[in-house]
Amino acid sequence: MILSTIASHSSLQILLGAKDEGFRTRLYVKPERRAFYASTRLADELIVTEDMGAILEDDGIVIPHGSFVAYLGLEGIEKAKTRFFGNKRFLKWETTFELQDRALDAAGIPRVEVIEPEEVRQDRLYFVRIEGPRGGSGHFLARGEELEERLGNIEAKFRIEGFIPGVYLYVHFFYSPILGRLELLGVDERVLIADGNARWPVKPLPYTIAGNVGVALRESLLPRLYDYGLAFVEAMKKLEPPGVIGPFALHFAYDGNFKAIGFASRIDGGSNALHWYGRLYWDEPMSVGRRIAREIRLALGEERLAEVVT
Amino acid sequence: MILSTIASHSSLQILLGAKDEGFRTRLYVKPERRAFYASTRLADELIVTEDMGAILEDDGIVIPHGSFVAYLGLEGIEKAKTRFFGNKRFLKWETTFELQDRALDAAGIPRVEVIEPEEVRQDRLYFVRIEGPRGGSGHFLARGEELEERLGNIEAKFRIEGFIPGVYLYVHFFYSPILGRLELLGVDERVLIADGNARWPVKPLPYTIAGNVGVALRESLLPRLYDYGLAFVEAMKKLEPPGVIGPFALHFAYDGNFKAIGFASRIDGGSNALHWYGRLYWDEPMSVGRRIAREIRLALGEERLAEVVT
Amino acid sequence: MILSTIASHSSLQILLGAKDEGFRTRLYVKPERRAFYASTRLADELIVTEDMGAILEDDGIVIPHGSFVAYLGLEGIEKAKTRFFGNKRFLKWETTFELQDRALDAAGIPRVEVIEPEEVRQDRLYFVRIEGPRGGSGHFLARGEELEERLGNIEAKFRIEGFIPGVYLYVHFFYSPILGRLELLGVDERVLIADGNARWPVKPLPYTIAGNVGVALRESLLPRLYDYGLAFVEAMKKLEPPGVIGPFALHFAYDGNFKAIGFASRIDGGSNALHWYGRLYWDEPMSVGRRIAREIRLALGEERLAEVVT
Repeated sequence: MILSTIASHSSLQILLGAKDEGFRTRLYVKPERRAFYASTRLADELIVTEDMGAILEDDGIVIPHGSFVAYLGLEGIEKAKTRFFGNKRFLKWETTFELQDRALDAAGIPRVEVIEPEEVRQDRLYFVRIEGPRGGSGHFLARGEELEERLGNIEAKFRIEGFIPGVYLYVHFFYSPILGRLELLGVDERVLIADGNARWPVKPLPYTIAGNVGVALRESLLPRLYDYGLAFVEAMKKLEPPGVIGPFALHFAYDGNFKAIGFASRIDGGSNALHWYGRLYWDEPMSVGRRIAREIRLALGEERLAEVVT
Repeated sequence: MILSTIASHSSLQILLGAKDEGFRTRLYVKPERRAFYASTRLADELIVTEDMGAILEDDGIVIPHGSFVAYLGLEGIEKAKTRFFGNKRFLKWETTFELQDRALDAAGIPRVEVIEPEEVRQDRLYFVRIEGPRGGSGHFLARGEELEERLGNIEAKFRIEGFIPGVYLYVHFFYSPILGRLELLGVDERVLIADGNARWPVKPLPYTIAGNVGVALRESLLPRLYDYGLAFVEAMKKLEPPGVIGPFALHFAYDGNFKAIGFASRIDGGSNALHWYGRLYWDEPMSVGRRIAREIRLALGEERLAEVVT
Repeated sequence: MILSTIASHSSLQILLGAKDEGFRTRLYVKPERRAFYASTRLADELIVTEDMGAILEDDGIVIPHGSFVAYLGLEGIEKAKTRFFGNKRFLKWETTFELQDRALDAAGIPRVEVIEPEEVRQDRLYFVRIEGPRGGSGHFLARGEELEERLGNIEAKFRIEGFIPGVYLYVHFFYSPILGRLELLGVDERVLIADGNARWPVKPLPYTIAGNVGVALRESLLPRLYDYGLAFVEAMKKLEPPGVIGPFALHFAYDGNFKAIGFASRIDGGSNALHWYGRLYWDEPMSVGRRIAREIRLALGEERLAEVVT
């Protein structure tokens, strides 16, 4: 059995996990990125091509991640004959504000406040969020009085949120249909270009993500986040049957209360940050990438593969 | 032999460590927190109850942590017949300014400057610290001119400190009576709501802790911190015989010099952050939680359990 | 075979790695730092001495790190008869602006802009960098109008750079002559005293390093950094034959583009931060320290030790 993915986003942990679980691995990589991926031991087969669409003909199990929709399009993925790990129809839920809101509301998870343009006040701070996952690029923080001018230049779909001053925490879950269990595998903070202001404030800077740092959550906050995860899994069972299969992430602002700012309906790049919560469930270190391969291995062992691929 | 604790604060690493060392485990958990803890493999026995006081009748070895005093009270703990890991009488030393200062001064560890109200100057920054461990809640930063008004609203016991602009480092130690050795097992930084100002300063924010990130200390700073740890252990032997047994943490501001801002007289939640310093002493990864279980195992092996429980 | 180093900077991971690879270890330590190092299991032989120069007579293989030039001087190191791991003549390349620029330019790695004093503008921010590795001490951020006064007090060699607001990432590489392979083993951010401004800006603070935190880089950025690493290795083969042997680090500002701000021509202290990228190349955790010992072991196994020591 071979596990296949595209070289980007979280392919390293996906392939490392696949190797740890004893699978063969195949990686589709663009020529200009070949040198790095070829230097590692992770890909048994390296398909060097400009056309990432080739993965839609793959004869293994394809593991999608956060670059798939950009590379292949939702329609290309949903119509593909190749087997994808997880629920392919769940992938779209992170791509629009409307679907994100519907999922979070169905789960009863509190959300950040959305502000209508006519409600904007001159002297308050707002966060402008661009629709879809973009690694933070394009999002910005601005005062009400600056908004009109800055919004004039945006071509993408966006919305205005009340800015929540506090920490932003990204919580990585894995729902296992084979074990019937939700696992909370890690928490990260994003490292942004805007963090350049930490040492001395210069000017508002881009929210583009550069990396991730693992955070050990204050333990008293974990049960609440786990409950949110459970509610999300329940909600998606109804909204997009058979619901979540495998990884997803909930994104929160925390200012004493948690307010969701979005979610990832696939493995989230922030799970690249090292974390130990996997050992709460498993006797060995367990990244989200490895957890995917473990689920496939468990499914194969019980001849239940059909329950974890679509 | 069973190791028991309360579900909160650092119970995850305590139980994970206990399992790694081959102990059975028991966890007292409130009903609303049950789902998360029950999802993990850590507790062999889960006691779901509103009454955490039940642990004072436990027939195993109880591992205290930073939520014990809030749940059970110092008197309840000190009078309990059940066996606690560590020196029960040491737990109180973190609970008042007076005891903290006495311990740090006896150890010769420099402390942050305490400011009398009449010394406050309008244009300087001060840090107001609330007495007792509270996860940072209630502490705040303010200019001298704001102090009078803001202090009027505080009901808790507090004090005014000269604010030290710099990094805050939390150093996790373990003193082993069985090996007669002090181990420096990790260093963390706190992740606070106030860190929300890192990307763009909005307004002074709460110092409430949301999580912890492990820090590899600049190596040249480690010997000095280790010396402080040794001095603290020596001081506590005299102040509260038999002194420290097991984990404690020293909390420092660093602006080129270290100034203590307090300590934890038990396992500190910041040791939840992943760290590798345990391998300086042990051939395998060693969290503070696991180190507690290891000490009990070593004590049992040498029939010296009485030296590590009270 | 014994591996020897000086107690400081990154000696802990060097010795831990040496032990993991089955070597005997020797550590030269100053008396005032003895207590900490002696408490660990890392040094089979502890040489307690005020004179670090004693290591230049060592009969093992000496592993240099970032404190060697300060302790022993470049000339002392280059003339020493004892065997050093790596290319001794590479060590000097980080010590002056002129050599750093020559190496980065030869590799085609974009650099931060250097500003001539007459180009300084009153209202812009500049970063003043002191020559040589100093753990950040002495570097400072200032507005153009403050520069003249502040520069008057500096005795060290310095230069003025255009300040880049963004994140600063330190990328840890290892070039293996035995395997003919470049490995990217980790990425860190520095923890600085100046980070004290993250919670509320007080005043510009020192850039002195206190520690390091590991960062999982956004995966799409890795191939570019790996290409820079390859180009650096190629450039040094010509500039200082036989070129890089073993560890080095490239230091970048990232504001959407990478701009080099310097490099370390030896193991960089930032690799003390825990990272998992070593597993991209090896089946077990692999710090830079352990990687050094592994290279020596591989070289010994193939009777090619002469290729990795000078």
